[in-house]
Amino acid sequence: MDRVRPRRADARRNAALLLAAAREVFAEQGTDAPLDEIARRSGVGNATLYRHFPDRRELIIAVYAEEVTELCDRGRALLDENPPGEALATWLAGFVTHVATKRQLATAIHDDRAGQRAALFGGWHDSMRATVSALLERAQRAGDVRTDVTAADLLALAHAIALAGADADQAGRLLELARHGMDNP
Amino acid sequence: MDRVRPRRADARRNAALLLAAAREVFAEQGTDAPLDEIARRSGVGNATLYRHFPDRRELIIAVYAEEVTELCDRGRALLDENPPGEALATWLAGFVTHVATKRQLATAIHDDRAGQRAALFGGWHDSMRATVSALLERAQRAGDVRTDVTAADLLALAHAIALAGADADQAGRLLELARHGMDNP
Repeated sequence: MDRVRPRRADARRNAALLLAAAREVFAEQGTDAPLDEIARRSGVGNATLYRHFPDRRELIIAVYAEEVTELCDRGRALLDENPPGEALATWLAGFVTHVATKRQLATAIHDDRAGQRAALFGGWHDSMRATVSALLERAQRAGDVRTDVTAADLLALAHAIALAGADADQAGRLLELARHGMDNP
Repeated sequence: MDRVRPRRADARRNAALLLAAAREVFAEQGTDAPLDEIARRSGVGNATLYRHFPDRRELIIAVYAEEVTELCDRGRALLDENPPGEALATWLAGFVTHVATKRQLATAIHDDRAGQRAALFGGWHDSMRATVSALLERAQRAGDVRTDVTAADLLALAHAIALAGADADQAGRLLELARHGMDNP
């Protein structure tokens, strides 16, 4: 056991270094970036990279999963922020940025096994939905957001805005528009 | 002159019959539908079809242009409807339906000559923008819609909603959400 523990800790540390490097390199050069460059930047070497992530797809999935986890963590943290309606809007803005900027990662996860891609994205979508539901319910209880707004519709609208091909400025304005509506108060 | 006039009227009538048939057939069978079927249904014969529309692309462009013209005509008619905010919302709902249902027509207009597609869609976009601008300005003058909302943002948001892959029910709800906002009034 004493010999296994440090090795597990090493493995976790290496995986974290590889993921951090992969995020950087994919963001800079796209998902076709050379894996050698990722190994080099992580400082752990090619053999370790291939042991952790047997192919590019596994690495892309791990990077994407980490992004989703962070987005959900941020959502949990926002459950302590006030006002609750503002916390929900902040999370949605982060979600729009995630979808707009991580689009290449998402499309690079090809369906190499029947239904696996759908299962992955289904799971991620459920996590996002749970996150936004908690923020929405809290904002609705506080009276900040109308009670007829649903989590599914908010995610769909934020997703649509992210994919509208708008730049970050316009995406921000469209989200504000969805938040405050067209109606003159 | 006397001999030319009736021929021109005939040509206009034939083109209108062909376009009406093409709209029906494309809507039922998609843009790959047999042109023979369109000629048959219009009652004008294949030779007339090919004289008016030398290839499928010309016919698709004509059908799409007619849809845009109708949408803009409806917008002009709505300038007499009240309340102005409701008239704008009605037009936007029609625009969402247009984008969602005419998507196959739009993608079937390939770019066979450099920049021609961009010029066509640029012109159609300008017409739509002029239409929504007139409805928006009227609704803003009437105090129905916030003055910081722009025509470009409204079109972008409605376009995003139409392409969100939502069914007609969800698209309607998302448009209502954009209209009234998330804020609890």
